[in-house]
Amino acid sequence: VPLSTPNRTVGELGEHALIALIRARVPAAPGWVALGLGDDAAALEPARNALEVITTDASVEGVHFDRAFTPASAIGHRALAMNLSDVAAMGADPRAVLLSLVLPASLPADELVSLLDGLLGLAARTHATLVGGNITRSPGPLVVDVTATGAVARRRMLTRAGARPGDEVWVSGSLGGAAAGLSALQSSAAVPPEMAACVDAYLRPEPRLRLGALLGRNRAASACIDLSDGLGDGLHQIAAASDVGIEVDPGALPIDAATRAWFAGRGREPIEAAVTGGDDYELLFTVSPRMRSRFRTVRQQTRGLALTRIGTVRRAPGVTWNRDGGRQPVPSGYAHFQ
Amino acid sequence: VPLSTPNRTVGELGEHALIALIRARVPAAPGWVALGLGDDAAALEPARNALEVITTDASVEGVHFDRAFTPASAIGHRALAMNLSDVAAMGADPRAVLLSLVLPASLPADELVSLLDGLLGLAARTHATLVGGNITRSPGPLVVDVTATGAVARRRMLTRAGARPGDEVWVSGSLGGAAAGLSALQSSAAVPPEMAACVDAYLRPEPRLRLGALLGRNRAASACIDLSDGLGDGLHQIAAASDVGIEVDPGALPIDAATRAWFAGRGREPIEAAVTGGDDYELLFTVSPRMRSRFRTVRQQTRGLALTRIGTVRRAPGVTWNRDGGRQPVPSGYAHFQ
Repeated sequence: VPLSTPNRTVGELGEHALIALIRARVPAAPGWVALGLGDDAAALEPARNALEVITTDASVEGVHFDRAFTPASAIGHRALAMNLSDVAAMGADPRAVLLSLVLPASLPADELVSLLDGLLGLAARTHATLVGGNITRSPGPLVVDVTATGAVARRRMLTRAGARPGDEVWVSGSLGGAAAGLSALQSSAAVPPEMAACVDAYLRPEPRLRLGALLGRNRAASACIDLSDGLGDGLHQIAAASDVGIEVDPGALPIDAATRAWFAGRGREPIEAAVTGGDDYELLFTVSPRMRSRFRTVRQQTRGLALTRIGTVRRAPGVTWNRDGGRQPVPSGYAHFQ
Repeated sequence: VPLSTPNRTVGELGEHALIALIRARVPAAPGWVALGLGDDAAALEPARNALEVITTDASVEGVHFDRAFTPASAIGHRALAMNLSDVAAMGADPRAVLLSLVLPASLPADELVSLLDGLLGLAARTHATLVGGNITRSPGPLVVDVTATGAVARRRMLTRAGARPGDEVWVSGSLGGAAAGLSALQSSAAVPPEMAACVDAYLRPEPRLRLGALLGRNRAASACIDLSDGLGDGLHQIAAASDVGIEVDPGALPIDAATRAWFAGRGREPIEAAVTGGDDYELLFTVSPRMRSRFRTVRQQTRGLALTRIGTVRRAPGVTWNRDGGRQPVPSGYAHFQ
């Protein structure tokens, strides 16, 4: 089986060599993997006294990434990160990962190796284990479809549905950076140095696993969602699932200076752009008054990650903010088919 | 949310309406689903005293199916069937299903509904539960990526690795029918009535869940694999994983008359065509001498499904048969990138 990849396409290597190439890169599996790569299915020992969370998300060339400016390692990293972000939003610890690859035959094998390295690098850091997958040919775009599982004790699980009137609304990290970074990559000019952090936020988002697990373990959040589709979407999803409204303070939104300057310089209102931009793999969560001291503990344990209060849960439906001198609906953000 | 689909494309409906459309079709979940569709991830109560098997397989337009002659309901049925066939090959009972859809915006919404109905119909019959998924846009082909899980007691699990010299080699159903059916669909002429069963084998393969579960439960097979990539591939996979050889009796292969006539009429040697053709979602398994009476029990419980002995496991490596007056290697079948 040829494992040397320079100047060869995945079509030239063929399915069996590709599988061998992947297996050679996957580290030894932990004990709960009863059967890993290479059979009809993987077999896993369930975590004790825990629910299994399971989620899937596809990354599609031309929709979620452009190979012209997205390095293959970032394609792999992002494909896993967007799934681990969902695991984080449940308060769960990552366990198994399945990787379904739909590959154009012309894809250079070196790029596949970089993609794998990006994915497996993040997997190793987050204790997620690649246990299975599938490879097939694509007559069109590269598609990287990841399924991720995680474990969480039932009473510690976070959902979108627990927000109650009076709860505080919090968000991690900063908003709109990934959208600004993507916009910078898309502009034909070289990316200016002050946009490096935004570009990194787009290319290598860090799933907030530690925050999610701490919020769950400490029972410090009443609802939680990840911001894959933007803050606007996240607010609307929590409001709908919890049957509440949310009042947002637009002045409180954590938008960094480079992001503001980037959008302002392109005639886009920075707050609007940050709220509707996708790809912020931050956590949006609500904290009830009785959770405040437990939440303080979580904040002490997550120093280095900004956590910002951005609003309040209300009984009256609707996600609103005070802008342009009046109460307005907050736009609901990124939509995949528009 | 508009749920009326006539004459509308999925792009016109948009993501939220599509999700609503799917949710409206999914039946109530069983009790082990702690959290189903609609959150960042699904949450499942693990089966008691069982391993979880998990597998993923993508169906790609232009590679695995052609929308010109594959009804949307068959696309959905097949996408699930190929995953449940892997669950069957482990001896497991189906549990959760995740559905990742990559949809061209121009896809008629009615076709998506038919696709879902095909998938959910098979899911209902096999007690598989749709618990989550993802929808995104495709700039190219329709991709239906399914992840399926199942439960099996550790000591009852079937793998590819247990075949030992002297074991009998068996296969379920008949071989090459799906390949002949696909060939009949691809030929421009109308499909002749005698090919209806072959066409059905291609469009609506029946995963051998009952057989797999009975082989596992009765500990009546030493190794097992499903024939998604054809008999040749299956034989080679079992031989490699079990570190044995297999001697095949070409005269014993169960190839029905319509399949033989179809291939012979097109200048293809029927046995060769049946061995290398993919899409036979049958089970290939080995039975050790001490399992014979338990296997007899399984045969009594699976009447109506043909089970045929096609060879013997040997110590000497290689998958061979006696043809053209000598011992020859059996071709290893379908390869996704050639």
